[in-house]
Parts: sequence; structure tokens; C-alpha cells
Amino acid sequence: MEQSSEKFQSALKVNPGVEPPPMVNPEIEKGGRRKRKRILTPEEYFQGIVSGDRIILSMAITMVESSLPEHQEVARQIIEKCLPHSGNSLRIGITGVPGVGKSTFIEALGTEVTHRGRKLAVLAVDPSSERSKGSILGDKTRMEKLTNNPDAFIRPSPSAGSLGGVARKTRETIILVEAAGFNTVFVETVGVGQSEVAVHSMVDFFLLLMLAGAGDELQGIKRGIMEMADLLIINKADGNNLEKARMAQTEYSGALHLFPRKPSGWVPKALTASALYNTGIDQIWENILQYEKLTCDNNYFHQNRQQQSKFWMYETINDTLRQSFYQNPEISQLLADFETLVIQNRLSPFEAANRLLDVYRQNQ
Amino acid sequence: MEQSSEKFQSALKVNPGVEPPPMVNPEIEKGGRRKRKRILTPEEYFQGIVSGDRIILSMAITMVESSLPEHQEVARQIIEKCLPHSGNSLRIGITGVPGVGKSTFIEALGTEVTHRGRKLAVLAVDPSSERSKGSILGDKTRMEKLTNNPDAFIRPSPSAGSLGGVARKTRETIILVEAAGFNTVFVETVGVGQSEVAVHSMVDFFLLLMLAGAGDELQGIKRGIMEMADLLIINKADGNNLEKARMAQTEYSGALHLFPRKPSGWVPKALTASALYNTGIDQIWENILQYEKLTCDNNYFHQNRQQQSKFWMYETINDTLRQSFYQNPEISQLLADFETLVIQNRLSPFEAANRLLDVYRQNQ
Repeated sequence: MEQSSEKFQSALKVNPGVEPPPMVNPEIEKGGRRKRKRILTPEEYFQGIVSGDRIILSMAITMVESSLPEHQEVARQIIEKCLPHSGNSLRIGITGVPGVGKSTFIEALGTEVTHRGRKLAVLAVDPSSERSKGSILGDKTRMEKLTNNPDAFIRPSPSAGSLGGVARKTRETIILVEAAGFNTVFVETVGVGQSEVAVHSMVDFFLLLMLAGAGDELQGIKRGIMEMADLLIINKADGNNLEKARMAQTEYSGALHLFPRKPSGWVPKALTASALYNTGIDQIWENILQYEKLTCDNNYFHQNRQQQSKFWMYETINDTLRQSFYQNPEISQLLADFETLVIQNRLSPFEAANRLLDVYRQNQ
Repeated sequence: MEQSSEKFQSALKVNPGVEPPPMVNPEIEKGGRRKRKRILTPEEYFQGIVSGDRIILSMAITMVESSLPEHQEVARQIIEKCLPHSGNSLRIGITGVPGVGKSTFIEALGTEVTHRGRKLAVLAVDPSSERSKGSILGDKTRMEKLTNNPDAFIRPSPSAGSLGGVARKTRETIILVEAAGFNTVFVETVGVGQSEVAVHSMVDFFLLLMLAGAGDELQGIKRGIMEMADLLIINKADGNNLEKARMAQTEYSGALHLFPRKPSGWVPKALTASALYNTGIDQIWENILQYEKLTCDNNYFHQNRQQQSKFWMYETINDTLRQSFYQNPEISQLLADFETLVIQNRLSPFEAANRLLDVYRQNQ
């Protein structure tokens, strides 16, 4: 690091020495109805978070989610302050198509986890939540038990935006909830798009919920997701469905053995559960703990976290570069026309790209 | 297209009206040993290609693969001229780890295809070919039959570079070989990295070669590849291996039914083959033709090609934006330091990204 440190001293500086002036929290001020108008500095947010103040934690997450530059600056500082206090949780990704019973499952597993003395934060990545209203966490009433559980903290997905942006905000929020002492983090996502890849890149363990049925249960699930999963759960294994669920379990158990081995050394399993009747839930948690032990022992846990941190650095860079291009007014004006030419085979994709890049360079 | 066409008339122009002056082909001129020093214009390359002149086709591909700006300009024009004459082939991606018998398989399937009266071009995407020398096509002697087959044209992978660059050049080469009348294109890749995703995005049909064995055959194969495949081939199904191969076929056939359905409507199959003894090869080709019929009938074939064209436009843009960033001298000087800070959890991935982006903006 010595060589470049002189020229780029400021860029490489880990702790900015100067604290900016205290900032009014505009959200609270605008509303104007709260009794105390609180003026919070990044340090105050940080102190509130590490002391476990949930209201301050929520306010800080709102800063992270905000797109206002002044909020982003505050969020930036909160995150850096929290960073050394983060990392001490088990992060679990949970996905499955709508109808699979995800909210009930999260309630059941979350309750199990808190009964075992852990503190749970439930986050979500759902870039479409504004449109589809399909997100579990947009509707807290569906997770009533956890909402009222003093050891659980539930936060809906950041509202609609680019997947990259939404995922990044959730990834930053993980740092905050960990600093607040939550040692278990669930990150929920709907299993129909690219968002699983993003969630997979921020969790230690990835869990796919399915239903029994002749292959149809996976319709809508993006291809490749099954191979990402550390655990397949056949949910709703109760009543008339029990037999079918057990058959599905057998089939998937066989199939999972045919998959390429995971770098973690973990062999994925298929289990059945009934979130509604709370059966199989404890076994799922035991499996997750086994995974944690295995990967801590073989050091994959740590290595994977490091790889993920690098991934997020590069992902943030690449996402920002892309946004700068596609949000350029000239580009957004031209893009559809070029798409048409390319689709009609009148211009090669490469030539279209080159011409758009030329326009971008001239209009940056 | 009306709105933006005035301002960006030149960018949107499909056929550049003015032909640049004829260019000396530097390769030939530098060598100086050929009897005829040929001076080829893009139009002459194009005429040579569509008339089926293989030497000119090879020279044109060399232009496509070259990184010299003057070659790239020639290549650009050749590609645009060939574009309206391209698209009339069946493009097949073939992947599998080293040792799976890929070169023998390509020889066997390629010979089958030409016996059926088709013209075959075999290309490759292997960004590591310079280093590993592991590429089949780097070693043409291993495909002696096809090399001497007048209906086959074999071209090794573009030499080492970024995956994006190598893949793009192969994608562009497809346009050229199609314009030259090859109605079947194999694109070979080694099944160990990201390159399958790139190949998958340029072919109509994706074929994964495997060996029988207790799950180990997939070690080294990147996760997610299996779910991409339209056909799993258990190769080396001969001699003592035959029984094991048939068992593997049964297992994989079962597993493939558990995968999410493909948007093509095609249900992937597992078949056995012995490329060495030429058994099962005709059946594989019959399956590929069935796929072609199904997807032409349901219009997926056409839709997928359009999606792929769009994909390559965006991929080229994104790849160029990334390269411009990471090849920036200031960035490449700082990147390792920031990676270290991030890995050590001393700086968040997001803050590291933001600071690097600031440096980039100041030094562009």
C-alpha cells in the first residue's frame, strides 16, 4: 500500500478525521408532528445503533435507503462507523415463488431462532415491491408474531429502484443491524428474477422453499437458483400433502447429489417442513448450524465473506458506471431506436454499442 | 425513431454511404513473402466471404480478432456488410471439462453433420487458451478428420484476453461464417468458468458433455451450467464404462425433470454416446433437429435470437465501460489497496467503490 499512498492519501484514508456539522433529520422535520425534533449527527446515529435503540436504527436505515445526497452522506458515515462492529451474524437468504408460504415460514423459523436466544433481523430484496405489492415484508400483518417479538426486527425491502440499488441498500443495512447486535439475519427475496443472485452474494447460507408437485412447483423459479441452494425445503408438508412432499423430498435428495460439488464442502439437502404446523422447523435450523460449523472449521465461511465484500465493491463500481451511461439523457433518448435496429438485424449489436458509446463520450 | 433521428442522424445511419480508401492488409504486406500482395477493401473481404473463399474468410476473422484500431475499423465494416447475410445457421454450444472427450465428440458429431449435407464451422471461446493450452481447438491435430473435411471450417479461440473481448470476437465471427454459407456452427468452450454463460448467449442449443461416475464427473463444472443445458451427454459410454454410463443416464434423466421448465418449451434430456465408437451420435443430432423444429414452431428460436442480439449490445456497452474504468492508470494503481482495505473490513465495499469512482472521475 506504500507506493500509492502518497498520491492518493485522502482516497485511502480509512477514518475521515473531520466530523461534519450536525444535521437535522429532514424526514422528521418535514413531518413536523413529532414532539421532539431530533437533530442527529452520524455519531449519534451510530451510538444509538450500537446501544440497541431500534428507533434510531430504523431512522438510520431510512438514511441508507434515501436517495437524497445529504442523506447519503450521513448514511455513508454511519456505515463506516458501524463497519468494525458488523460481521458477527449468521446471514441466511430465503427465496421461493409467491404462494410457497414464505411469510409463514419466516415466522416459524424466526420464532424458533429467537426461542434459542438469538436476535433476528429480517430484511428483504424486492426491487418490484412498489409495483407488484407481492412482497411479504410489505405486509407486516402477515408476520404478526415476529412483528411483536422483542428479539426480532423486521424491515421491508427498500422501495422500487434498480436491482443493483435495492440490493446494495439491503447489503448496507446488514452492517447496521449487525452493529445493533442482531446475530441472525434473514434476507428474503422472491424467486423469480435476478434478485436471488444478489441475495446469494450477501448471505452465508441460501435456502430455497418449494412445494411438492410434478415439477410444476419450480415454474417461475429462475434457472440456476436450485444449484445455488444449500437447503431445499418442501414446504406445506402437512395433511393430504404430506405424502407428496415426502416423495418430492426423495426425488430432490437424489437430484442434489448429481449437482456439481459446492466450494463450501457442504452437500445440499432436501427437507420437508410445515411452517403452518411448525414441523421440521427445528431440524432446518440444526442443518443451518451444521453448515455454520462445517464452513467455520474449513474456513470457507470467512473466505466467502471476503469474496463477497470484494464482489460488492466491484458490483457497486460496475452498477454506478452503468447507471451513469443509461441515465445519460442522450443515451436514454437513443437506446430504444438502437434496440430496434439490432433486433431487426439492420445493425450488429457491436456496432450499435460502439455508436452509443461514441454518443456517450461526446455528451458526458 | 422519428423524434431522435434528426439530432442523431449519423449515429443511427445503418449503411455508411462513403467507402473508405482501400487498405493494405498489413499482415500480408509485412510478411512480404506471398507472391501476390493483396490489397483488400472491406467490400473485397465481403465479396470473398459470400462467395465462399475460405482464405479470405480466415483473413477477415483475423481482422475481427485483431486489436489494432485500423484492423478493427475494417472488421467493423466487414461485419456490417455480412450482417444481412447472417443468421441462417443452427448454432450449438458444446461444453464439458477437460478429459471428457470433447475433441473426439466434436469430430464425431461434426462428421455426422457434414454427412447429412450440412456445412459446419467450429469456433471456440477459451479466454485462457494462451495459458492453459487446454483448448481443443488450439490443437487442430486432435481433430484431423474435420480439419481435412471440405465441408468443415475450424477456427481456434481468439487468443487470450478478457472473457468479454474473446466472447465478443467469437460472436462476431459467427456473423462472418454464416455469411460464408456455413449453416451449422459449433461453439466449443471449457466448462470451468464464466465462459459458458457467454457461449450460452450466442447459441440456439446448449450441450453439456459429462462422464459417468459417482457425481465426481461434475467436479470443476461451474454450478448453474447443468441447468443451462438442453442436452446432457454421458460420453465414453463404451466397453466397461457402458453400464455405468447407462445408470448415470437414468439418474440424470430423473433429475432433469425436477429442474425449472425452460422458456423454450424443450424438456432437456440425458443421452449416452461413445464418440470414439461413433454410437449415439446420430441420435444426438436427431434431438437437436427436434429442438430446432419445436422452437421454430413456437417462435422461441426467433425470440431468443432477438434477446441475444439485445444482450450483446448491452454486454458490449457494459464491458467497454468496465474496461475504461479498470484500465485507467490511477485506478489500476489503487485497486489492490482498496481490495485489501475491504477484505480486512476496514472500509465498506460501498465506500471503497465511491472513492475509486471519485478518483476515476477526476482522472478520466
